[in-house]
Amino acid sequence: MDSQERLQKQFAFLREIDREKQVVRRTPLADNSRMENDAEHAWHMAVMALLTAEYANEEIDLLRTISMILIHDLVEIYSGDTYAYDEKAKESQRERELAAADRLFALLPEDQGKQFRALWEEFEAHETPEAKFAKTLDNVQPTMLNDASHGTSWISHGIKLSQILKRNSVTKDGSEALWNYSYQNFILPSVEKGYIIKDAET
Amino acid sequence: MDSQERLQKQFAFLREIDREKQVVRRTPLADNSRMENDAEHAWHMAVMALLTAEYANEEIDLLRTISMILIHDLVEIYSGDTYAYDEKAKESQRERELAAADRLFALLPEDQGKQFRALWEEFEAHETPEAKFAKTLDNVQPTMLNDASHGTSWISHGIKLSQILKRNSVTKDGSEALWNYSYQNFILPSVEKGYIIKDAET
Repeated sequence: MDSQERLQKQFAFLREIDREKQVVRRTPLADNSRMENDAEHAWHMAVMALLTAEYANEEIDLLRTISMILIHDLVEIYSGDTYAYDEKAKESQRERELAAADRLFALLPEDQGKQFRALWEEFEAHETPEAKFAKTLDNVQPTMLNDASHGTSWISHGIKLSQILKRNSVTKDGSEALWNYSYQNFILPSVEKGYIIKDAET
Repeated sequence: MDSQERLQKQFAFLREIDREKQVVRRTPLADNSRMENDAEHAWHMAVMALLTAEYANEEIDLLRTISMILIHDLVEIYSGDTYAYDEKAKESQRERELAAADRLFALLPEDQGKQFRALWEEFEAHETPEAKFAKTLDNVQPTMLNDASHGTSWISHGIKLSQILKRNSVTKDGSEALWNYSYQNFILPSVEKGYIIKDAET
């Protein structure tokens, strides 16, 4: 492949992923003016990683963590966002996302397609310290926004504490400190204010 | 400062910068459906950095480059986005942004406030290889989107080739290859299609 062909593939990919800005999540902005999208979510998590890497349970490679964060939702361009509390959609999630990954990463030059695919698979597997920490931020960031926006998304979906605790059962794997902060400052107050249905012990 | 106070400052900052998602730019999304915002722009540039660092004129520290990219527009939360071709607004831009930086970075724990401030000043000074490369992407990313969206932003503001060449006079400093690609694939075709007013030699 000559360098022009390589650049063309890279820019074709960069143009295609512009669509991530239109993948709407179920988390509102802090001021509740509208729902957040995947690109904004990834940016917010990446800045969060810069500021909170010190709380990772294990030592992490920050560049690899941020790279993972930046691309962790790209497959949703084709597969759509799967709401964390939509059990039916979650049944088909892995299959839909694998097909999306095949299609999306094939746009890149082969070496970079493999590199991005491996980063995404690493995030999904939730085994390395970097993947665990990225997942922590993936869970803590919406908790912060849901609390800030007066729980409107939790309220409108009738979310129960047991569901939140189940989803967040892995949050502490990346950072005990960030999980504790999220629980004490976003989740518990939201239970007390009635944003989250209290169906379990706090 | 105890660790809870530190965490509180970090999360107060992270919640405040949610506002970056509402700083609207003059660049449309590729499909021309709406204007892009600063958070989306920073995310897109960061992924672009992951894929195109190989074209930097000088060797760059990719983590520092991406860190700079992620935060380069944060001051616009308070100062607003200054359109690249608004000469009047650009006169007061530096002063407005300095005041914004004082206010914003003071939210952070002192060490991290200094770190983010230094990164932002490094970007603004355009002297290090990392800052030059970040600026290249800051210019190339909107050129890609303006071309993809059929030049609607250029057309609506009556942008001339001489203005684009002046703005892009520093784009090659970070990467000759990316500047050449942008010029050949986004700018020249947009002149030919009449999206950009041809008032200079191509």
